[in-house]
Amino acid sequence: MSLDTLEKLYISELRDLYSAENQLLKALPKMAKGASSSELKDAFEKHLEQTKGHVQRLKQLFEQLDESPTGKTCHGMKGLIKEGSEILKEEGEDSVLDAGIIVAAQKVEHYEIASYGSVRTFANLLGNDEAASVLQSTLDEESEANETLNGLAEGIVNREAVSETQLAEANSNR
Amino acid sequence: MSLDTLEKLYISELRDLYSAENQLLKALPKMAKGASSSELKDAFEKHLEQTKGHVQRLKQLFEQLDESPTGKTCHGMKGLIKEGSEILKEEGEDSVLDAGIIVAAQKVEHYEIASYGSVRTFANLLGNDEAASVLQSTLDEESEANETLNGLAEGIVNREAVSETQLAEANSNR
Repeated sequence: MSLDTLEKLYISELRDLYSAENQLLKALPKMAKGASSSELKDAFEKHLEQTKGHVQRLKQLFEQLDESPTGKTCHGMKGLIKEGSEILKEEGEDSVLDAGIIVAAQKVEHYEIASYGSVRTFANLLGNDEAASVLQSTLDEESEANETLNGLAEGIVNREAVSETQLAEANSNR
Repeated sequence: MSLDTLEKLYISELRDLYSAENQLLKALPKMAKGASSSELKDAFEKHLEQTKGHVQRLKQLFEQLDESPTGKTCHGMKGLIKEGSEILKEEGEDSVLDAGIIVAAQKVEHYEIASYGSVRTFANLLGNDEAASVLQSTLDEESEANETLNGLAEGIVNREAVSETQLAEANSNR
């Protein structure tokens, strides 16, 4: 496919996202299973449900465009999920591992924020306001998911940092 | 390495960034070469110089920590650069290809924003204010690079969208 119009780039980027979201559908249950904190598990399970909705929205956009959603592999998401699977294999303290899982998940959310931001802008420029609005809804949910992870990270990581400081103080008082 | 303290996760994430930045050092000249717009070429060349500085900053942090910066491959960046190299191989209109290159570059910037945001927070929590300040400086430059790309995308993509609309109108008036 020659990228000779903005619409072709738009469709190519939507296919990339369709591949990314489908990869994420398989990865999120593993991240939920690997998390120790129940709030973090819940956040991944909630985002899995949202992700199912994002895939449906993309399918509908492809139907309206009379194009196939498949045919592209999102290498960016593949690499990000590989990073996530690495942290899931690590050994260590539950709270530190949870913080690592959150970092991996936030990289995924930032990927999606960049991608949905681009396709939403392309849809606007192409005069497809309905598609732009659908893509904005998903973008908002990705941003919210990232904010939720920020909040959880603060709670989990702060507890860990405080306990490390207490440990260091206890050691120095021995 | 067992991730039993926040400091170990912090060092592991810094190593991931060191690998990411070094991969980017090799990719940015290719993106500059592949871009058609001279402003976009300039933006990549400027960011290449900044990236060299980011690598130096990471090296200094590792020296202070008395740790080695190497030993990790950043799979996230590997995938993102693979996406960028795919768009560089495409054929099509210069402005559409430039828009595609910008999307790929913004995904890279978002990856770095997520990563530097995490390690800056970890440095703060570990009481390493100097490191947190260094990491914040890089984070600010990554955010600025993303904003520059946003501005360039608007200029390039808007011109393309307008010319497509004019083409469609010209065709419908035939």
